[in-house]
Amino acid sequence: MTALQTQGGLAKAAAYTLSTAGTAKKNQALEAIAQILTERQAEWLAANADDVAAAKETGMRSAMLDRLTLTSSRIAGIVDGIRQVIALPDPIGTADKTETRPNGLIISRRRVPLGVIAIIFEARPNVTVDAAALCLKSGNACILRGGKEAIRSNRCVSALMREALVSVGLPEDCISLVQDTSRETARELMHLDGYVDVLIPRGGAELIRTVAKEASVPVIRTGEGVCHIYIDDEADLDMGAEILCNAKCSRPSVCNAVECVLIQENVLEPFLARAVPLLDSYKVELRCDEKALNILGRRGVLAQDSDWDAEYDDYILAVRTVKDMEEAVAFINVHGTQHSESIITRNYFKAQRFLDTVDAAAVYVNASTRFTDGGEFGLGAEIGISTQKMHARGPMGLEELTSCKYVIYGEGQVR
Amino acid sequence: MTALQTQGGLAKAAAYTLSTAGTAKKNQALEAIAQILTERQAEWLAANADDVAAAKETGMRSAMLDRLTLTSSRIAGIVDGIRQVIALPDPIGTADKTETRPNGLIISRRRVPLGVIAIIFEARPNVTVDAAALCLKSGNACILRGGKEAIRSNRCVSALMREALVSVGLPEDCISLVQDTSRETARELMHLDGYVDVLIPRGGAELIRTVAKEASVPVIRTGEGVCHIYIDDEADLDMGAEILCNAKCSRPSVCNAVECVLIQENVLEPFLARAVPLLDSYKVELRCDEKALNILGRRGVLAQDSDWDAEYDDYILAVRTVKDMEEAVAFINVHGTQHSESIITRNYFKAQRFLDTVDAAAVYVNASTRFTDGGEFGLGAEIGISTQKMHARGPMGLEELTSCKYVIYGEGQVR
Repeated sequence: MTALQTQGGLAKAAAYTLSTAGTAKKNQALEAIAQILTERQAEWLAANADDVAAAKETGMRSAMLDRLTLTSSRIAGIVDGIRQVIALPDPIGTADKTETRPNGLIISRRRVPLGVIAIIFEARPNVTVDAAALCLKSGNACILRGGKEAIRSNRCVSALMREALVSVGLPEDCISLVQDTSRETARELMHLDGYVDVLIPRGGAELIRTVAKEASVPVIRTGEGVCHIYIDDEADLDMGAEILCNAKCSRPSVCNAVECVLIQENVLEPFLARAVPLLDSYKVELRCDEKALNILGRRGVLAQDSDWDAEYDDYILAVRTVKDMEEAVAFINVHGTQHSESIITRNYFKAQRFLDTVDAAAVYVNASTRFTDGGEFGLGAEIGISTQKMHARGPMGLEELTSCKYVIYGEGQVR
Repeated sequence: MTALQTQGGLAKAAAYTLSTAGTAKKNQALEAIAQILTERQAEWLAANADDVAAAKETGMRSAMLDRLTLTSSRIAGIVDGIRQVIALPDPIGTADKTETRPNGLIISRRRVPLGVIAIIFEARPNVTVDAAALCLKSGNACILRGGKEAIRSNRCVSALMREALVSVGLPEDCISLVQDTSRETARELMHLDGYVDVLIPRGGAELIRTVAKEASVPVIRTGEGVCHIYIDDEADLDMGAEILCNAKCSRPSVCNAVECVLIQENVLEPFLARAVPLLDSYKVELRCDEKALNILGRRGVLAQDSDWDAEYDDYILAVRTVKDMEEAVAFINVHGTQHSESIITRNYFKAQRFLDTVDAAAVYVNASTRFTDGGEFGLGAEIGISTQKMHARGPMGLEELTSCKYVIYGEGQVR
């Protein structure tokens, strides 16, 4: 047995205990985690300082360094997040349908945990706690595999969380960390059939595609976001410019940021006249098709083919002219990642048709794509945004971390 | 492009049209299919007669031959099934939650089709129509890949169904048949990423395991059924014997038939005294552990290790003695296929604990496992019984053939 198989077996056994632990016990464990992370944050900060120092030596760029770095106030935010998860309703044990059949059988469909959830993520140490808290509340054991840059922070915080679990009488293996951050171990985790019920990759597009392609365990794809905004010729162009600028610039690094604007040909010039000044204040680079470039001149650059599928996660925007909405929808359905798509229009029929025919987790009329988020959607918290159609689609909250089972009460029925 | 990729592309395009076709149009298509299969059944029967003749030449055993054979009355049953699907409510377009957020965004989660569903199945020609009807009603295009033994029947019936689709103005590629029944083509279908949204294998355990292991497209595992009945020492033993006999003998070839009875040690002898006479009338072979064999003598045979994981689909039953319920549950969770499990007991607390701790799609108290079925559960029809935890669990009706998308109505909101 490999180390990871042993870890998988322990997680599976812990999941079995956790599945019937009850809401009060799970909340008690979450509160114990909140407390230990507050009281002993010095240990976590010290481990994180070592990670940061090592990352500086390897020349990590500053945006990444910032993501990696913990502070007291960031820890307070993480702890606050745990208390929000405590406040969320527990989906486990609820029945979404119950029926008494003509033969007297009472058939009820009950929410149950998925079992063992593995999460592969990158260098953000807050994910370690967020993910563990959501898995714990939904009755799932988790196996966390973070990036090597955060391994010291992750070792420390996972040990603290395991100590908190034991303090309330739950198995420590409800939460475990993959100690070895090699690619080989990540690959082994993708093939840990029989132990891992679901694998969720959280991170960049490359990570997600690799996992989806490689894994033999069930995967939920999350967070690939090549999102579009389509500016219809019946749009309120000022509103469109505001929404576009918000969707691009309010936080360009996230998956619900827009990457490409599609503009109906006959409003190309007036729309750009309104949008470009707003984008200028963020120095957004514009990668344009020929028609847009004819208007923008040296303000834009000519797009390459690869720009039409690019997830920039940066202050860069692809600009493309389309003949009409049908062309926009067809383009989106080919080049999008089924994440978030928006139309700006005053026309009722076009709005409805866009909603009907665009194939994505979230389709908007006259709003920024940036709203695709568990908090904004009222789920309370999210473990990621699913861009697949099976099991869950869009922001995944606690309920999306569950399965169901039918429980059937009989009194001797035979068929 | 291979023939199958071309077929996949056509199915994808058809699925796009079908996704917004509306309930009335889909029901019209189903009615047209019901009519053409009735009016031109002579063609279908003739093609089937050729299949049956060819199968007889290859020496197909009689149970299989019976499954393969169509008759007028079987066709009437199949057509009746289509009309039942017409009568079912259409899940597409319903919203299971709608909320107006504090910022005024109206967020609604709407049911949408999965897209293209591929189904690999064996020699039963009724599956061809059942599966196509359920996919059509739920707005999904389907790619059907039946066994080579039924290829003439399947070619005929799929051509008739396509003709019916065209007659109501829907794309014929909403339903298509894989013309080539080679293993290579089946394998290609398992890897038709980008065209196939979900692959559902229907058939024997070997087929299902191969597909689950091989496929890179998303798979829903269905119908692996190693089901158990646990006879508790507080059981009504007569009821237990009736239920066991029903679960084994009413239709041994199906996945919800019981394969193994677990009997608490201290009621082993009185339970067998009641159960064996019932099983005798069906000549059920009993494969026993040593304790049971000591009681049964020459009525039983000694079980091999492989018997504890066997899906017999036949008049064979594994018989095993357990110390108590905890041992039974542990055994089930290791040797079961997460399909259907039942406890026979009068004890309230044991019943509840069994329901809580057995990990399966359907867990019963005092009832036969044979009830795990879409019709019996009130779903109206089923495309299979999922034994996995992701997406769907237990009998899969129309709703389980759908995904969702969030549609969001804004009036200029930015974040």
